[in-house]
Amino acid sequence: MAVNFPLITPGKLKPVPGLQLGYAQAGIKKPNRKDLLVMKLAPGATVAGVFTTNRFCAAPVQLAKTHLAQAAATGKSIAALVINTGNANAGTGDAGLVNAQATCDALGKLLGVHAEQVLPFSTGVILEPLPVDRLVAGLPQAIANLADTNWFNAAQAIMTTDTLPKAASRTVTIAGKKVTLTGISKGAGMIKPNMATMLGFVACDAKVPQPLLERMVKEAADASFNCITIDGDTSTNDSFMLVATGAGELEITSADSDEYQALAAAVSWLSQELAQLIVRDGEGATKFITIRIEQGRDADECRKIAYAIGHSPLVKTAFFASDPNLGRILAAIGYAGVADLDVSTIDLYLDDVWVAKQGGRNPEYKEEDGQRVMKQSEITVRVTLARGDAAATVWTCDLSHDYVSINADYRS
Amino acid sequence: MAVNFPLITPGKLKPVPGLQLGYAQAGIKKPNRKDLLVMKLAPGATVAGVFTTNRFCAAPVQLAKTHLAQAAATGKSIAALVINTGNANAGTGDAGLVNAQATCDALGKLLGVHAEQVLPFSTGVILEPLPVDRLVAGLPQAIANLADTNWFNAAQAIMTTDTLPKAASRTVTIAGKKVTLTGISKGAGMIKPNMATMLGFVACDAKVPQPLLERMVKEAADASFNCITIDGDTSTNDSFMLVATGAGELEITSADSDEYQALAAAVSWLSQELAQLIVRDGEGATKFITIRIEQGRDADECRKIAYAIGHSPLVKTAFFASDPNLGRILAAIGYAGVADLDVSTIDLYLDDVWVAKQGGRNPEYKEEDGQRVMKQSEITVRVTLARGDAAATVWTCDLSHDYVSINADYRS
Repeated sequence: MAVNFPLITPGKLKPVPGLQLGYAQAGIKKPNRKDLLVMKLAPGATVAGVFTTNRFCAAPVQLAKTHLAQAAATGKSIAALVINTGNANAGTGDAGLVNAQATCDALGKLLGVHAEQVLPFSTGVILEPLPVDRLVAGLPQAIANLADTNWFNAAQAIMTTDTLPKAASRTVTIAGKKVTLTGISKGAGMIKPNMATMLGFVACDAKVPQPLLERMVKEAADASFNCITIDGDTSTNDSFMLVATGAGELEITSADSDEYQALAAAVSWLSQELAQLIVRDGEGATKFITIRIEQGRDADECRKIAYAIGHSPLVKTAFFASDPNLGRILAAIGYAGVADLDVSTIDLYLDDVWVAKQGGRNPEYKEEDGQRVMKQSEITVRVTLARGDAAATVWTCDLSHDYVSINADYRS
Repeated sequence: MAVNFPLITPGKLKPVPGLQLGYAQAGIKKPNRKDLLVMKLAPGATVAGVFTTNRFCAAPVQLAKTHLAQAAATGKSIAALVINTGNANAGTGDAGLVNAQATCDALGKLLGVHAEQVLPFSTGVILEPLPVDRLVAGLPQAIANLADTNWFNAAQAIMTTDTLPKAASRTVTIAGKKVTLTGISKGAGMIKPNMATMLGFVACDAKVPQPLLERMVKEAADASFNCITIDGDTSTNDSFMLVATGAGELEITSADSDEYQALAAAVSWLSQELAQLIVRDGEGATKFITIRIEQGRDADECRKIAYAIGHSPLVKTAFFASDPNLGRILAAIGYAGVADLDVSTIDLYLDDVWVAKQGGRNPEYKEEDGQRVMKQSEITVRVTLARGDAAATVWTCDLSHDYVSINADYRS
């Protein structure tokens, strides 16, 4: 099902010194599947994150933000992250906050840290009470198997409608010092992150002060998770967290340093890989589409147009059908909401094929050329606006029968 | 396929004195189907319209706007409308304008009027050259069968992926004078009108001065076609036209009169009926959904939320599946873009079932109650925001396998 999804094996995921992972089958929604993950951090690790902008932001997201702020205010470091799948604990009102707090209390007690040193995350169905008793009962099992080699199990433990676990890993050498970065992500539907994705976690073993890490996570999110869309639905639980354990060789001291730039680039690269894995495994996806808007006045208008194309059900079904019904792309550009857009200067390319020229059909465009590109599993839509030098890229997938099937059946 | 679509027969559609309709099989895209419509108006008729806001506005739309402006400037009245299906003549650049002009020239010549007294309309595939020779060759056939009894044939002649012709008719008595109103519409996909719908035409036999008719058509569009969405795609060709032939008994002289109010209400009622027919026959539709947002600060924020719900593929597939996965509605409310929305005051109802209370699950909500409503073919989603007294209503349908099939196959 997934589109050109790379082979990910446990052996490819490098341990990040200073971070251990433990998982459990807590039976939160269904029995006999990994649905609970604990990440334990070395003392002194720094953690920064970006979260959903959805006003119905989930209880664990609210609490994670509070705990991050308390950690910053009191100087206590974050000691653990706990993630459950099977229930989003969103749209659950005050009871949801009580349950998220109970989760942190229980894990804090088991690990011998304060509850506010724990960050909670949830993903799954919205508007249903979190079965917190089953979650808490699963924590000892997760703690019992804590190990730094569990990244693959961790990626499995946070899946919902994902068909494949999503993880990536790399090592870089910066100023002669080795840094290991490994991350996991999940999400296949309700994907149109706005400051963050459904769930993404990236860890590295460099030592990075809190303010620099906060800057780095925002940069990485904007270059990765904030550039993908599957169905235009921004989730209530989107969270993207960056952990710097400080257990490795490299220490970052300034945002102006070459070391910061190199590490930020590596983090962004890994985040982009994780974000694209989400699109490749998008619900029902059969095509991986890159939408590139160039020569705009500013990045915002480029993003508006890219998302209009990426969200259009008509464009997405045409990709599914490999049908070069490319007028639908022009229609989407036209209603994207760029009020003073002059369409007579717009060109449209499908990979190397020049489809529309100055707002109309390119006289040299041949249907069979469009057809050839539409049949590929990876396609780039490129639009040039001829009104500036800003650009934006969005990655998305097609809309297939399986998307409807998956979302008509997901909860029932 | 269509949802509770009323039985429409030729006999139910009342002739509007002062307006004749003729149709032809011009073979514009496929042979042996009605694809060309001419509406001939009595001298002195007034015509007003609203058009798509899509920047890739089609050539015929551009020309229709120009001709309406010329008619207003020169005092010449509009004498005819010509509508083809099978090709949108959009994304066709200068050649498209030349073809739209040639259409008006040819019809003007045949009817003995100036080309600028003709308004052209097109609907169908975008980015393909209009086969103007075939269209022009079909005009004599359409003129030969001009009659005021052809409304049903007219509704058939403008269909694309519509499964059923859409028309409505009524007579009202205003100030003791009889007024006949009849209208047709078309559209089943690429439906998220913005100032107008794909194609809608309403005619009445009252005499209405141009400025009053322009006001009336805007009011009617805002109460009808501007409240529907099928897939969120605003078309390049949306046009909604109101014709007042002046051949009947009633004459409107002032917008402040009771007569104006009564006629405007009748036009809005008929327009709403035609707009809802489009949703009932939405591509692949199995459910007709009314989304009502109440107690907002202004109508704009209510509409934002209503459209976020109405466009969410996750909400729409849940309706298709009759699955009360209603947290998806909360998620859509949350990302609708109302920045300062306090979700803790929001209630959600599904028909008479109180699902969410103060932003969380209503403790008394029972899954079987939600299930019962979700199984219906007509469902009202009602959201109360508790922050004002504005409201908005949007009509939409579900997202089914057939939507994907229709749009994956439509052009190929």
